[in-house]
Amino acid sequence: MTAATLDVVGIGNAIVDVLARADDAFIAAENLAKGTMTLIDEPRAHRLYERMGPGIEASGGSAANTIAGIASLGGKAAYIGKVADDELGEIFAHDLSATGVHYKTPPLKGGPATARCLILVTPDAQRTMNTFLGASVEFQPGDVDRDLVAAAQVTYLEGYLFDRPLAKEAFRQASQIAHEAARKVSLTLSDPFCVDRHRADFRDLIRGHVDILFANEAEICSLYETKDFEQAAAAVRGEAEIAVLTRSEKGATVVTAKDRVVIPAAPVAKVIDTTGAGDLFASGFLHGFTQGKPLAHCARLGALCAAEIIAHFGARPETSLKDLAAKAGLA
Amino acid sequence: MTAATLDVVGIGNAIVDVLARADDAFIAAENLAKGTMTLIDEPRAHRLYERMGPGIEASGGSAANTIAGIASLGGKAAYIGKVADDELGEIFAHDLSATGVHYKTPPLKGGPATARCLILVTPDAQRTMNTFLGASVEFQPGDVDRDLVAAAQVTYLEGYLFDRPLAKEAFRQASQIAHEAARKVSLTLSDPFCVDRHRADFRDLIRGHVDILFANEAEICSLYETKDFEQAAAAVRGEAEIAVLTRSEKGATVVTAKDRVVIPAAPVAKVIDTTGAGDLFASGFLHGFTQGKPLAHCARLGALCAAEIIAHFGARPETSLKDLAAKAGLA
Repeated sequence: MTAATLDVVGIGNAIVDVLARADDAFIAAENLAKGTMTLIDEPRAHRLYERMGPGIEASGGSAANTIAGIASLGGKAAYIGKVADDELGEIFAHDLSATGVHYKTPPLKGGPATARCLILVTPDAQRTMNTFLGASVEFQPGDVDRDLVAAAQVTYLEGYLFDRPLAKEAFRQASQIAHEAARKVSLTLSDPFCVDRHRADFRDLIRGHVDILFANEAEICSLYETKDFEQAAAAVRGEAEIAVLTRSEKGATVVTAKDRVVIPAAPVAKVIDTTGAGDLFASGFLHGFTQGKPLAHCARLGALCAAEIIAHFGARPETSLKDLAAKAGLA
Repeated sequence: MTAATLDVVGIGNAIVDVLARADDAFIAAENLAKGTMTLIDEPRAHRLYERMGPGIEASGGSAANTIAGIASLGGKAAYIGKVADDELGEIFAHDLSATGVHYKTPPLKGGPATARCLILVTPDAQRTMNTFLGASVEFQPGDVDRDLVAAAQVTYLEGYLFDRPLAKEAFRQASQIAHEAARKVSLTLSDPFCVDRHRADFRDLIRGHVDILFANEAEICSLYETKDFEQAAAAVRGEAEIAVLTRSEKGATVVTAKDRVVIPAAPVAKVIDTTGAGDLFASGFLHGFTQGKPLAHCARLGALCAAEIIAHFGARPETSLKDLAAKAGLA
C-alpha cells in the first residue's frame, strides 16, 4: 500500500442547480413530494421550468457539493462525473476547479445537455428537487479514473447513482479499486425514495463494500423499514464500519461496532435554504476523518459545515470553511 | 393620444451575471477599476473566468433589472433586448417572463453567445463588472418593437447602449416613437466611464429627448465635468424634466425646473452586494411615477427597492417588492 496523495475522491451526478422560491400551493399544484428528489425527463423539466419563478443557477450535485466543501476546508479532493460540452457544463467545471478540486472527466459531446436540478425552496427553507439527469446518465464504468480512486484515502459515492444501472456498475468498480488499494469506501443514501427503489441492493452493498455510511433519519429508517430511529441505528451497527446518521436540528449520531457518539446541531441565526445540508455535513465529517481526528471532532466539523450552507441560498459554501473551522477550534 | 396599456418598457443589453466573491488583491492583480463596468472581449472573458472563484449565475442587465423590479412592484412592464439561442439565453428569458415581464425579442441564431457580466464582489460589498456583450451587440433599430414603445407610459433606456452605434441608433428611434405617441423617455447614465466615453452625445440627448434622467453622483459629476455634486445638480436643472440623482448612503435628490426633493437612504441591516442598487432605485421611482405619485413618494419607493437589492447577492429582487412597498406604506 502506497501513501494516499488525495484525501477524498467523489463520484456522482454532475448537476447544475436552478434554485427558485415557491410557496406550498405551487408544490401541491405540481404534485411534488416536499423535501425529496424526483427524477424528471426533459419535457417535464421544460414544463416545470416554464411554470416556476425566476431562479439563480449554481453548481450542485450531491457528491460534488461534498467535494467542494472538502476543498474549502483545505482538503485534497477530486471529483468524477459527467457534464455535456455546453454552457452549464462549463459553469460546473469552472466552479469545481475554482474551489481547488481536481476535475478532469471529459465532457460528453453530441448527447443530452448538462444535468440540471430544478429546486423549489419553500418559505420553511425546505427544498424540493426535480432532476433532469441529461448528460450525467452517460457516466459509466469507463469514466472511473483508477489512479484517482487508488490515490484517495476515501472514495465517496452518492446513492443517486443507483438509479442508473451503468452508474451502479461504476460504483461497484470504484469500490473494488479502492479496496484493492486498501482505501475506504463511503456512501450516502441520498434520499428516502431512492433507498426505497433500491433497498436490497443498498443493504448488500453496505454489508459488503461500505466503510463509512451517511444517512439522514428518513433514509436510515427507510433502509431498515422502521419508523423508529433507535431501531434503525441498532440495525446499521456493524453493517458499515462507521454509520453517520444526521437528524437536522436534532444533531447527529455516529455509530460504530463499539462506539456511539451523539453531537448537537451547530447554531444557525436563520435557516434560509436547506439544500446541501447533508452534503456539507459529509464534507466536514470526511475532512476530519482523513485528517485522523476522533469521531466526535469529525461530526462537529460536519455540523459546522451544514450550518454554513443552510444559512444561505445554494449548496456550495459562500465563505472559506477552513477559516470557519479554525474560528470554531475545529481546524 | 390613446391610453397607455403598459407602464414601462425597458431597452438594454440582455445579460446573465456571473457573481463571485473576490478580494481587493485580485481586483488589483487583474488591473480592474473597482466599482465600475469594463467591456471585455471573449478571450479576455475566458481568461478572467478561469482565474476567478466559483460563482452563481443570475439574470442581469441594467434595464432588465429595473423592469423586473417594476413587475415585482405590480407594474405592467415589458423589455426589449437580445440574447442568443443558447442555455444562458433561455435562463434570461425565463427569469424575466417568470417575473411577469412581457419579453418577446427573438433570440439570435448562429451568432455570438448570450452576453455575460463577470461581477466580482469585494468584502466591502462593492461590485466590479466585466461585460462580454456577445449576442446583445446584435441589437439594432429593427429590434425596437414600435407597438410596445407606443403603448408604454415610459420608455426606459440604459446608457450602456451608447457603447454601440447601432444600439445608440435604436435608442434615438425608440425615443422618437415614444414622443410621437406623447409618452415619456427615461435614461440612466449607467457608469461614469460610459459617460466619459460619450459625454457630448449624452448632453445632446438629454436636452432634446430625455424626460426623466437617472444618474448617481459619479455619473452626473462626470457629465458636467465637475467634482462638486451641487454644481452638477444645478447644471442638470431644466435639461431633463426630472433628474433623479442617487447618492448611495446619502440618499437621493430629485431636481426639476421648479422643485428639489431630498430623501434619505432606506435602512439596510447589512450591505452584502451593491449590484443593482441604481437599477432598483429606478424601478421604485418609475413605478411610483407611472402610478401618478408625488416625486418624494417615487424617490422613497426607489430607496426602498434599492435597500432590498443590496441586502443580498444578485440584482433581481428576492422578495415581492409589492408586499415590501405595502408594508412600508408606499403602495
